[in-house]
Amino acid sequence: MDKQKVQPSILPGFMELLPQDQLLFNKMLDTIKRTYETYGFIPLDTPTIEKSEILLAKSGGDTEKQIYRFSKGDSDLSLRFDLTVPLARYVAQHYNELIFPFRRYHIGKVFRGEKPQKGRFREFYQCDIDIIGNESLSIINDAEILSIIFSTFKALGFDEFTIRINNRKVLNGFFESLGIENKADALRIIDKLEKIGVPAVTAELKELGLEQGAIDSLLEFIRIKGGNKEVIERLKALKVEGELFQKGLEELEKVCEYVEYFGIPEKNNAIDLTIARGLDYYTGTIYETVLNNHPAIGSVCSGGRYDNLAQNYTDKKLPGVGISIGLTRLFYQLRESGIVQGAKRATPTELLIIPMKGTMDYALDFSTKSREAGIATEVYLNEGKLGKMFGYADKLGIPFVVVVGEDEVRSGVLKLKDMSTGQQQELRVEEIIRAVKG
Amino acid sequence: MDKQKVQPSILPGFMELLPQDQLLFNKMLDTIKRTYETYGFIPLDTPTIEKSEILLAKSGGDTEKQIYRFSKGDSDLSLRFDLTVPLARYVAQHYNELIFPFRRYHIGKVFRGEKPQKGRFREFYQCDIDIIGNESLSIINDAEILSIIFSTFKALGFDEFTIRINNRKVLNGFFESLGIENKADALRIIDKLEKIGVPAVTAELKELGLEQGAIDSLLEFIRIKGGNKEVIERLKALKVEGELFQKGLEELEKVCEYVEYFGIPEKNNAIDLTIARGLDYYTGTIYETVLNNHPAIGSVCSGGRYDNLAQNYTDKKLPGVGISIGLTRLFYQLRESGIVQGAKRATPTELLIIPMKGTMDYALDFSTKSREAGIATEVYLNEGKLGKMFGYADKLGIPFVVVVGEDEVRSGVLKLKDMSTGQQQELRVEEIIRAVKG
Repeated sequence: MDKQKVQPSILPGFMELLPQDQLLFNKMLDTIKRTYETYGFIPLDTPTIEKSEILLAKSGGDTEKQIYRFSKGDSDLSLRFDLTVPLARYVAQHYNELIFPFRRYHIGKVFRGEKPQKGRFREFYQCDIDIIGNESLSIINDAEILSIIFSTFKALGFDEFTIRINNRKVLNGFFESLGIENKADALRIIDKLEKIGVPAVTAELKELGLEQGAIDSLLEFIRIKGGNKEVIERLKALKVEGELFQKGLEELEKVCEYVEYFGIPEKNNAIDLTIARGLDYYTGTIYETVLNNHPAIGSVCSGGRYDNLAQNYTDKKLPGVGISIGLTRLFYQLRESGIVQGAKRATPTELLIIPMKGTMDYALDFSTKSREAGIATEVYLNEGKLGKMFGYADKLGIPFVVVVGEDEVRSGVLKLKDMSTGQQQELRVEEIIRAVKG
Repeated sequence: MDKQKVQPSILPGFMELLPQDQLLFNKMLDTIKRTYETYGFIPLDTPTIEKSEILLAKSGGDTEKQIYRFSKGDSDLSLRFDLTVPLARYVAQHYNELIFPFRRYHIGKVFRGEKPQKGRFREFYQCDIDIIGNESLSIINDAEILSIIFSTFKALGFDEFTIRINNRKVLNGFFESLGIENKADALRIIDKLEKIGVPAVTAELKELGLEQGAIDSLLEFIRIKGGNKEVIERLKALKVEGELFQKGLEELEKVCEYVEYFGIPEKNNAIDLTIARGLDYYTGTIYETVLNNHPAIGSVCSGGRYDNLAQNYTDKKLPGVGISIGLTRLFYQLRESGIVQGAKRATPTELLIIPMKGTMDYALDFSTKSREAGIATEVYLNEGKLGKMFGYADKLGIPFVVVVGEDEVRSGVLKLKDMSTGQQQELRVEEIIRAVKG
């Protein structure tokens, strides 16, 4: 290679796809988008670059470390690291111009300068929906969010998945009743139950200062399993004192009731008292979604209910509920684990028209008609032998090819070749258009 | 406002839309995307952040000044300032895995830290297509690009627009024949003809060192107007010596010939010998597109032919031809000049279902059916008076509303209200779905 050339490459931790995979990725993205829209969510697009003071208004340690922050002129700029903070800023800023409940979806890239590791990306797509209420927001919205998760994964072609729900008030209320102060640490330890077993978990909880009685109650609590109704009954039977627990239980029961009305099969949703998610942010319902046959992938869609979206920017009380699908990571994992296979097609083209000597005018006119009928159509415009042209169609996975020779132009009858079967049909232009549209 | 609150705002020079405008913007973007795909272009998505050494491999003064460049860890990073440099890097990097001619489209945001001014943005969408050949690429591709511009602006709802074409070989060949060395300066002066008039232009060209004979020839040349055939004939009649001019004239003639075969009306395209575009980059056909009734907007879609896409990254010769639509700026100008009116709708929702007391289960089941039929459907899930709920539908511009009371549940007959006419129809669920789908 020439000394002056720069070696073409991208940075580690960034995803770039070849055409086949890009088409698959886009299909997933379009499916998510279409599903979100059938629920009446409004598309939103906010700047990739925002003021650092906005994005870091409520900063945690990790956020501050991971954020891409830089200056240009006098400005202190940052790339957004999620779509929720920009939403909070947007709703606070445009509060008077928005209609509440404000239902928005946002599909866009976010940026986190994490240490690169397999399956983690520094630039990735998030597909978010949130419903924001003004002062209040009915619990039925929490059930609707579950319905949207269900519809989205069904539309993506999945059948064996479980949407796990829990309620932070139930968790916190129960912990309070046991006098556990360090809820975050206790939950982290409990999370390891499957891995390290009861004795090790018990030991760690003791180190945290819990008494044996509290530990037993805790282990009993998180072992409550069964159908939603059964879990609710067993939670009631615990007779936990305290308003918080009771309020949470009531919410959980309502969500389960409404979820039935949405027609979500029992097998696709389950109360799971062990899920907790980002402890500071959520205040009610929380969601995680797992692919039953691929638990190693972890949660593919998570979210929850929060009391106050935009408290860093406004005094208005704006409760909401939302979820996020990390599409870049999900796509990577589906491809890696073979759940999504590589596509045969590397182009949207459905019909390739190959003109022979002297028939370019006919071929171009044909292509215009075919496109007007909505068919993605290409004319082979360059020099080359017929074999090379068919090779082009074959390598790209174009399903149909027509060769336009002088005889064909004269007779008006052309040979349509189905590239998957190799079969040819003699058809007129209008018939070809009908056949390809199928 | 609380002292701890951060005033919600975005940086100057960034676009953010309210729901009505966002829906309009997305409709334009989808139209462009769909049109590009009917020509068989492959979608591509490259990282927003690239290595600075890649993006600045061939840097000009403005690029270097405008680019958002920063470091994270050891890496020297930059935000892409166009979609062409990433394309060049991509094609060089994945050369062995791509099928040529490589036809790709890319719709994405690019970033330029320009001084903010009305109608200029620091973060904006570009909608690009390029056709990249391996070693060679037929001139017919240049005509196809013109066909794509035509189809795109027709699909966007425009009728009165002109795609101006020129050929850099014709320009350069003619300049060479006059012995003009400083072509860029000469073109810049000529560009001002309409503004400052012949005497002033003559004076400036003299300062540049041109003799009166050359100036007269130049002015005669750029005044050549008429139908494409007429312009070609007049260019031939100039009898300019030199291979470059003759090659360019031949290309221009071919493009015009093939453009006819694509069925593009004469009124929508015209040779314009005064357009030049980025002098260093293009080597053949060049395009600009103007809205006839709004010349002040300038070119809304530009591009051209280049000999060597990726010379900074590879020794492979990769000629190409492409165009770009700067959608953010175009949208802004169309809205400012009133060509695009604000939308009535602020949501994709087509049907709002309002449940009364005790009918939520029926309403939710109805909404699932309606969504399965492809209708964007919302159920009003929150508390409130009926008037408030109709107000919600009205403010968002939702076209149809159904109220579900206990009587309606019992009889199975519901009242569908058309919000634009105020008329109501008594219909069953399946009939409502048919009526809303229209």
